[in-house]
Amino acid sequence: MNYFLGIDMGGSGIKMAITDEKAQILDKTSLEMNLKAAPKTILSQTLSEASKLKFYDKVKAAGFGSAGDIDYKKGVLRYAYNLPQWKNVPVKRLLQKMSGREVFMDNDANIAALGAFWIDLKGKCENLICITLGTGIGGGIIANKKIYRGSSGSAGEIGHISIKFDGTPCNCGNIGCAEAYLGGKNFQNYCRDYLKDKKDALIKSMTDGKISNLTIEILYEAALKKDKEALFLWRYYGEKLGVLIASVLNILNPDCIVFCGGLSKAHKFFEKSMKEEIVKRAFKTPAKICRIIFSKYSNVLGSVGAAMLPNHQK
Amino acid sequence: MNYFLGIDMGGSGIKMAITDEKAQILDKTSLEMNLKAAPKTILSQTLSEASKLKFYDKVKAAGFGSAGDIDYKKGVLRYAYNLPQWKNVPVKRLLQKMSGREVFMDNDANIAALGAFWIDLKGKCENLICITLGTGIGGGIIANKKIYRGSSGSAGEIGHISIKFDGTPCNCGNIGCAEAYLGGKNFQNYCRDYLKDKKDALIKSMTDGKISNLTIEILYEAALKKDKEALFLWRYYGEKLGVLIASVLNILNPDCIVFCGGLSKAHKFFEKSMKEEIVKRAFKTPAKICRIIFSKYSNVLGSVGAAMLPNHQK
Repeated sequence: MNYFLGIDMGGSGIKMAITDEKAQILDKTSLEMNLKAAPKTILSQTLSEASKLKFYDKVKAAGFGSAGDIDYKKGVLRYAYNLPQWKNVPVKRLLQKMSGREVFMDNDANIAALGAFWIDLKGKCENLICITLGTGIGGGIIANKKIYRGSSGSAGEIGHISIKFDGTPCNCGNIGCAEAYLGGKNFQNYCRDYLKDKKDALIKSMTDGKISNLTIEILYEAALKKDKEALFLWRYYGEKLGVLIASVLNILNPDCIVFCGGLSKAHKFFEKSMKEEIVKRAFKTPAKICRIIFSKYSNVLGSVGAAMLPNHQK
Repeated sequence: MNYFLGIDMGGSGIKMAITDEKAQILDKTSLEMNLKAAPKTILSQTLSEASKLKFYDKVKAAGFGSAGDIDYKKGVLRYAYNLPQWKNVPVKRLLQKMSGREVFMDNDANIAALGAFWIDLKGKCENLICITLGTGIGGGIIANKKIYRGSSGSAGEIGHISIKFDGTPCNCGNIGCAEAYLGGKNFQNYCRDYLKDKKDALIKSMTDGKISNLTIEILYEAALKKDKEALFLWRYYGEKLGVLIASVLNILNPDCIVFCGGLSKAHKFFEKSMKEEIVKRAFKTPAKICRIIFSKYSNVLGSVGAAMLPNHQK
């Protein structure tokens, strides 16, 4: 049996896992992220932490993933807006030197997709789309069981399909991107705006009367308490998500879509309206054959997917 | 050298070509389509016509493509709305029996993509999207040099990405599909509507004063004559197409997009506004690295692509 180390680095922490070649987690750990420390220091601390994991000595190769603009062929993290110290860092070279193992690299969306492919689908899936519902809307594509990266490594930006060409401006410069509606921050702002003039006692009481205190977390809790406005807003979220997914089904015809990320936790409040919208909008067969899964493994998809990178190079 | 026969069947005609394994056309011909004749009769006439082509005797295998819902694995044309006689026709089996050669089958969008891959790109392209601008908006995807069909064979429906979730209803049942704006008939109707109250002498004179006589062809000719309204409408077409292409670049990050089909002939009137929209909307790198080509070979892409099908089964 071969063993692999996966490292998933984000703005708030670094997750590590050791898996076997079937993506079974044998041991895992994590580190807080120090945004001010030098990349070399971080990488060395990460490996020192990883070396305490069970089976580390048997690790054959490693995978590293993070947010940002990544040259996966050269193994360089070019730039990530939430990691200010990381500019043109040759992560692959550094980690290979430090660890004595071959290292592969990819972005957070692709390693999450690989994680979903292995954990949620057990590798039994041809074409999978993994969509992260977080501050941003990320997307990773597995086509014919392989990561589809496109021609300059940036394929999968499903959050930046414009769902309304004259709609809400998006941070990326485009207009009406799915992310402008569905990204955590944007949806939160939409909700604050919507609730401003609503006299709903429950939501107001949960934000100390100030709607500017409203967070996605509070919106989720209010829905758990059956707050009418919160339930309405999650339904709205599901409708817009359904618009996006219908387009994704029509273009990519996957056998599986996996949702992960912070907002996917609230799926029971938006799943119904999302599916209704899909039925209304997508072609029948692609809609019927596609399984839709809300991953229960959001917090390990990245590290496990990273660990599987060495096996997904061909 | 191996030779291949490609057959491209459409509502108005059947095109045939014999190519070598590098997609060079060695001979070609065509037949009018008889929509009332039995499929078997049509297939037998097609082969009888094909057998007159140069090098037919050396043909090793054949490819057949048509519009409609195709089971490419079984080689069955299930249904095509513009070919009423063709229901669950086992084309592959019939043609194999009649010709004594192995036959492969795919839909019109995929064979056009394969044709563009070989004719326009000479096979030198990793990820290609071929978009047919016709009555409908078709799409075929080549990913990592292979046809990407998705999990039930219907991937590539780029015309059915909704570019405005609350926009113009589409024939497919969805709302705001690209095709609802860009499909030939839909665009023609939009133009008629737009021009109704416009007192533009030139366009009116070209339609005998009746705007209901306006066709895409007339709109093209009016633009050639620098008619202001016609030029405005083609710019509008380019803008909406640019919205769609920006999304396609963001999701699929291809190195090449090839346009074909009737409306692509008018590209000099919509190319500029399309590209401006792409620059405004798409991520920079995918927009920069993608070549955009308006194929000069629209009328042979299908038959040549069909001829290359036997070489694209793995």
